[in-house]
Amino acid sequence: MFEALFSSPEVAEATGERAWVGAMLDVEAAAARVAARLGLIPPASAAAIDAVCRPDVVEVEPVWRRAVDSATPVVPLVDAVRAALPAEHARHVHAGLTSQDVVDTAMMLVARRALAVIDDDLGAATARLAGLAAEHADTPHLGRTLLQPARPTTFGAVCRGWRTALDAARTALGQWRPAIQLGGPVGDRAGLDDRLAAGVAEELGLADAPPWHTDRGRVVQLGAAAGVVAGSLAKIATDVVLLSQAEIGELREGAGGRSSAMPDKRNPARSVLVIACAHRLPGLVSTLLAGLPQELQRAAGRWQAEWPTVTDILRLTGGAARHARVMLAGLIVDADRMRARL
Amino acid sequence: MFEALFSSPEVAEATGERAWVGAMLDVEAAAARVAARLGLIPPASAAAIDAVCRPDVVEVEPVWRRAVDSATPVVPLVDAVRAALPAEHARHVHAGLTSQDVVDTAMMLVARRALAVIDDDLGAATARLAGLAAEHADTPHLGRTLLQPARPTTFGAVCRGWRTALDAARTALGQWRPAIQLGGPVGDRAGLDDRLAAGVAEELGLADAPPWHTDRGRVVQLGAAAGVVAGSLAKIATDVVLLSQAEIGELREGAGGRSSAMPDKRNPARSVLVIACAHRLPGLVSTLLAGLPQELQRAAGRWQAEWPTVTDILRLTGGAARHARVMLAGLIVDADRMRARL
Amino acid sequence: MFEALFSSPEVAEATGERAWVGAMLDVEAAAARVAARLGLIPPASAAAIDAVCRPDVVEVEPVWRRAVDSATPVVPLVDAVRAALPAEHARHVHAGLTSQDVVDTAMMLVARRALAVIDDDLGAATARLAGLAAEHADTPHLGRTLLQPARPTTFGAVCRGWRTALDAARTALGQWRPAIQLGGPVGDRAGLDDRLAAGVAEELGLADAPPWHTDRGRVVQLGAAAGVVAGSLAKIATDVVLLSQAEIGELREGAGGRSSAMPDKRNPARSVLVIACAHRLPGLVSTLLAGLPQELQRAAGRWQAEWPTVTDILRLTGGAARHARVMLAGLIVDADRMRARL
Amino acid sequence: MFEALFSSPEVAEATGERAWVGAMLDVEAAAARVAARLGLIPPASAAAIDAVCRPDVVEVEPVWRRAVDSATPVVPLVDAVRAALPAEHARHVHAGLTSQDVVDTAMMLVARRALAVIDDDLGAATARLAGLAAEHADTPHLGRTLLQPARPTTFGAVCRGWRTALDAARTALGQWRPAIQLGGPVGDRAGLDDRLAAGVAEELGLADAPPWHTDRGRVVQLGAAAGVVAGSLAKIATDVVLLSQAEIGELREGAGGRSSAMPDKRNPARSVLVIACAHRLPGLVSTLLAGLPQELQRAAGRWQAEWPTVTDILRLTGGAARHARVMLAGLIVDADRMRARL
Repeated sequence: MFEALFSSPEVAEATGERAWVGAMLDVEAAAARVAARLGLIPPASAAAIDAVCRPDVVEVEPVWRRAVDSATPVVPLVDAVRAALPAEHARHVHAGLTSQDVVDTAMMLVARRALAVIDDDLGAATARLAGLAAEHADTPHLGRTLLQPARPTTFGAVCRGWRTALDAARTALGQWRPAIQLGGPVGDRAGLDDRLAAGVAEELGLADAPPWHTDRGRVVQLGAAAGVVAGSLAKIATDVVLLSQAEIGELREGAGGRSSAMPDKRNPARSVLVIACAHRLPGLVSTLLAGLPQELQRAAGRWQAEWPTVTDILRLTGGAARHARVMLAGLIVDADRMRARL
Repeated sequence: MFEALFSSPEVAEATGERAWVGAMLDVEAAAARVAARLGLIPPASAAAIDAVCRPDVVEVEPVWRRAVDSATPVVPLVDAVRAALPAEHARHVHAGLTSQDVVDTAMMLVARRALAVIDDDLGAATARLAGLAAEHADTPHLGRTLLQPARPTTFGAVCRGWRTALDAARTALGQWRPAIQLGGPVGDRAGLDDRLAAGVAEELGLADAPPWHTDRGRVVQLGAAAGVVAGSLAKIATDVVLLSQAEIGELREGAGGRSSAMPDKRNPARSVLVIACAHRLPGLVSTLLAGLPQELQRAAGRWQAEWPTVTDILRLTGGAARHARVMLAGLIVDADRMRARL
Repeated sequence: MFEALFSSPEVAEATGERAWVGAMLDVEAAAARVAARLGLIPPASAAAIDAVCRPDVVEVEPVWRRAVDSATPVVPLVDAVRAALPAEHARHVHAGLTSQDVVDTAMMLVARRALAVIDDDLGAATARLAGLAAEHADTPHLGRTLLQPARPTTFGAVCRGWRTALDAARTALGQWRPAIQLGGPVGDRAGLDDRLAAGVAEELGLADAPPWHTDRGRVVQLGAAAGVVAGSLAKIATDVVLLSQAEIGELREGAGGRSSAMPDKRNPARSVLVIACAHRLPGLVSTLLAGLPQELQRAAGRWQAEWPTVTDILRLTGGAARHARVMLAGLIVDADRMRARL
Repeated sequence: MFEALFSSPEVAEATGERAWVGAMLDVEAAAARVAARLGLIPPASAAAIDAVCRPDVVEVEPVWRRAVDSATPVVPLVDAVRAALPAEHARHVHAGLTSQDVVDTAMMLVARRALAVIDDDLGAATARLAGLAAEHADTPHLGRTLLQPARPTTFGAVCRGWRTALDAARTALGQWRPAIQLGGPVGDRAGLDDRLAAGVAEELGLADAPPWHTDRGRVVQLGAAAGVVAGSLAKIATDVVLLSQAEIGELREGAGGRSSAMPDKRNPARSVLVIACAHRLPGLVSTLLAGLPQELQRAAGRWQAEWPTVTDILRLTGGAARHARVMLAGLIVDADRMRARL
C-alpha cells in the first residue's frame, strides 16, 4: 500500500507479490537443476521444470489467493507448476523440499535484490554527505543540544557526523548475509543429499548454512540493520527539518513541497517522507523479534507473519533511502546565515 | 501486500488505494455541497465538483505517485479535480479545507467501511461461540494452566470464556466513533463557518468534533481496540492449535490445510493465519502511539506514517476476523475424547 | 530503576515491591473477611488472617526472591501468611483462590492507587492550561505546520488545543475500571460462592466482573489509555521545546536545567523528561498487546510478563504527568515575542 | 522492579543505580588520571579526584534525585565530587567532558559487566545442550510442525538445533563492542586532545571510537543482539513447555514449580520465567530503535530514555539466561516416551 510514498519504485517491484512468486520459482528451478546434476532426478525433468518456473507461466494471483487454504503459498505454487507439466516430470517438482525451504530461500532472494537497490541509494547519499562535509569544513555552525544553543562547530563536522553514522549503518546492513534454507519436512536436513544444499546455494548465489527453520536470528538481524539505516536517515532528515525552520533558515530542501491550502508555503516534503518511513521500522522490527519463540519444528503463526513484515521493512528502508538521496542531492545550505548566527 | 492471506477480500478493497482516493473525493464533494447550501460557493460549482469527485473520473494511480512531491496526496488530488472542471468552478474546490482535513476525514470513512465488514465477521464468530457454549455446556473438559493439567471444567465454559472476551473486544471497537476533522490551515477552525463542519459531518454520517489535527488519541484508540479484537481472536486460535495437537485431539479444523511435503498431514491452517495476522498488531499499534507527540500545528512525519499503519491495522484485523469466522464455522469438537481425558 | 527521573515519588511508592505485596495481602485479607461473613470459614480465623496480612508482618523481600521457584509470588506469600498463624487458622488462608486471582486483583489495587496520583497531576496540568488559554486568548501566535510558518493563530488557541487533547486522554483513563479477578484454579469460578466475589469487590472498592484470567483486554486498555495520556503530555512538551529554541524564544521553562559543561546554558529539562518518559510507552503497550494470546486456562509466560510492564507503564505515566505539571506551572510565555513574529 | 524474578542477582547488581553511579565515577576518575599524564591537570588533582570517585564517598541516592532538575545525573554527580574536594582540585573535575560523555561511557561499562555474567550463563546453557545432543543423538523423536506430527527426527537433532541458534546468538552478542564516548559539549571532540580519548579508552578497557553522541546504532545493536539471545532462549523454553504437556510428557523440569491452589500440580516454572523475560525484549528494542532520530547535537528526550531501557534489556536477558541455565541443568528427558511415540 502507498508504495509510491513509502518505498522506491524499484524496491516496491523487487518485493511485490510477483517478485515473491518469481523468487519461489527460482528456488524450485534451482533445486531441480542441481538434483539433476546429482543424478537424483532425470535431466529432462529438470529442464522441463526449469522452463515452466517463471512468473509468466505460473500465474501469480491464484498462488496467493489459494495460499489461504493451507497457510502457505507453496502448496498452490507446486500444484501450478505440476499442472503445467506432463506427469513424468511433474512428480519431480519440489523433490526433498518443504514449504519453508522454498519461502525462506525466496525471502533471501527478495531481500538481496531489494538491498542492492537500497545500497545504491545509500551510496549516493553518503557520497553527497562527503561532498558537503568537504565543502563546509570551515563553515561555522552553531551546535545545539537539547535544542538550545551550545557551542560553535562547523557544518562540515555536522555532515561528517551524519555520514559516519550512515556509513556505519550501511556497512552493517551490507555485512548481512542471505543464506539458503534447506532442511526438509522437520528442518533437520535428514535424507537430503548435502551436495543438494551446497549446489542450490551456489546456483542462487546465497551462502550455504545449516537449516534455520526455527532459528530466525538471521531475519531479526536483517530487520535491525535496516532499522538502524532508516533511523540514521531519519536523524539527518530531522536535523534538516529543524535547520529549515524559518527562524533558523540555515538549510532548505531544493524542491520544497506544496501545500493544498497555502500556495506560498514550501514544505520539507522529502525529509518528512524519510521520517515517516523510518517511523514505522521500530514496530516492524519488534514484530520480528516477538516471532523468535517458534514452536517445535515449525511455528504456527509467528513464521508466516514474517513475510509481510520483512517486505514492509525492505520497502520502508528503500523509501527512506530514496527520499533521503533526493533530498540531500537538492539540499541548499545557507552558509552566510550559519556564519551570521555566531 | 499479501492481502489474500492477511486480510479479507472486502476489507482489502475497502482500504485500498482506490478506496482512499474515493473517500478523499467524498470529503471534497460533501464540503462543496454543504458550502453551497450555506451560500459560500455557487450551487452550480458544487454540482460540478460533486459530479467529478469520483474515482472513475479522477485517476487513482497518479494521485499517489505525485503525492511524493508534497508529502500529501491532497495536492495532486485537488489539482486533478480542478483540471477536470472549468475555471469558474475549479476555484471553489477545496475551499476552506487543508490537506489534513481531507486525509483525516477520509481515513475515518475508510475505517468505518472496514469496521462494518469486520463487525459482521465478529458477529458470526460470537454467534458460533454461543452455539458451541450451549451445545457443550455439560461436556467435561480438562482445564490446563501453564499447559499442565489443572482441574476439570466444561468445554462450554471454555467457549463462554472465549465469547465473553471477544464480545467485550467487539463492543469496545464498536464504540469507537469516527469523527470529521475540519480545522483549516493551522487546525483552529479559524475563519471556517461552524455550520460547514456540522454539515459535512451530517453528510458523511460522522460525528462532529473539535479539530484534532495534532490530537491523535482517536487514532490510537482505534488501533488499540482493533488490537484487542485481533488478540482475542488469536487467543482462541492458539487454544484451537493446542487442543488440536495429535496427543490431545479434542479439536480439529474442519478443512485442514495441506503440506507441500507431507500429503498425509493436515494443518490447522486457518488458526495459523489468525495468529499470524494478530501477531503484527502490537508493533503497528506502538507505531501509532509513538506518533502522538506531533509537532506544533502539523507533524513532520509522524502524521504521514499513520496512513499505511491504520490501513494495515484494519486489514490484519479483518483477516483475523475472517479466518476465525471460517475456522470456527468448521470446528470439529471431539466430546468423547474430552470426556475420556478426565 | 531511576524512578527519581522516570516517575513521581508517590507513584513509585504506590507501585513498588512493597506496595504489590501489600495489595496481595489486602486481597487475601478481604477474601477471608468475606468468607467468614458467608460462614465459609470461622470468624476467628478471618480475624487472625486479617491481622497478619500486612507488609509489616509478612516480609516483602523473601516473597519476591522465593517467587522464582514457582514463577508466582503467591506461593511464598501464602506460605509466609500461614507460617505466621496457628494451624487452625492457617488452613483457611487463600481458601478458594488461585495465584492469578490474588495477583490480578492486587494489580488492580496498585493501578488504582497510582492512577489517583496521576489524575491529580493531570488535573493541575489541565487547570494551568485552562488558565493559559484564557490569559492568552488574544495573544497572536504564528501557527507552524511541518515546522514551517503557516497562518496566524493565538497562543490561547494553542493552549486550548493542548488542553482538549489532554482532557480527553485524562477522561478516557479515568473511565478505565479496575475489577476483581476471582476465578479459582481454572478461571471458571466453579465451586466459588458468587457472593464471595461480590463481597470481595465491595470490600476492595473494585468492580465485580466475570473472571478474566485469560482475557487481558482490561489490562491492554489500561496501558493504551495511559499511553495516550503520556503521548498527549509529550506533544505539549515537544511544542515547549520547539518554541523555546533561542531563535524562536516564545516560551521558556521557569527553572531551566543546568549543563555539566556549559555553565551559561539553560535546558528545558522538565520537558525533556516528559518526552523521555512518554517515549517508552509505545513499546510497553505493545508488550501487553502481544500478551493477549494467553494459552488455555493460564498463560505460560505472557501473563507473568504483565507485572513489571504494568508497573513501568504506571510509573512512566506518573513521571510524565508530574514533570509536565511542574513544567507548566513555571512556564514563561513571551507574548511580545509572539506578537513581534507576525 | 521484580529483579528477583526477571533478572539474575548478579546482573541486577551490575546494572543497579549504585553500579551506574560507580561507572560514572570510574569515567571521571579515568579522565582525570589520563589528563594528568598528558600534563593537562596537576597530578595531585588527579590523585585527589581518583580518591573520591567511589560510590562509598559519593552518595548514590541524591545523584538520581537531584538529576531531575537538569535531566542528567552528571550535574549533581560532578557537584558531589567537587564538594568532596578542596577548590584547587575541584576545578579540574570533569575537565573537557560533557554529561553525555560520562553517561554513555558509563553505560558501556555497565553493559560490559552485565554481559560477562550473561555470557557465563549462556556458556553453561550451550554446554548442557551439547551434552544433551550427544547423549540423545540416537533417541528417536517425533518432529512436529504447526504443532502437528510431521516426520521422525532425533532428540539429539532438536538439542543441536537449539544449541546452534543459541550459539549464533551468543556469538553475535559477544562480538558487540563497547566503546568510549568522548565528544565534548557538541560532540565533535573539538578542543579535546585526541590522546585523552585514547587514554581513557585504554584505562577503561573500551574501544576508542569517534564520538557517537547522536549516532545510537551501537546501542540498538546491543539491544537487538540481546533480543535475539533472549528470543533463542524463549524458543527452547517454549519447546520445553510444549513437550512437558502431560499428554506428550517427553520432557520435565527437574524442580517443578508449585501451585498456590493445587498441591499436586507441578509447573514448568523456570521455562515460564524465561518466556516472560524474553517477552519484554521486542518492545524495549523498538524503544531504542525509535530513539535513533536524535535532534541536532544532543537529543531532547530520546537519549535520556535509553538509560532505563538498556538497563531493562540487560536485566531481562540476564534473567532469561539464568533461568534457562537452571532449567536446562535439571531437565529430565523421557527417552522411552519419545521412542514409544513413534
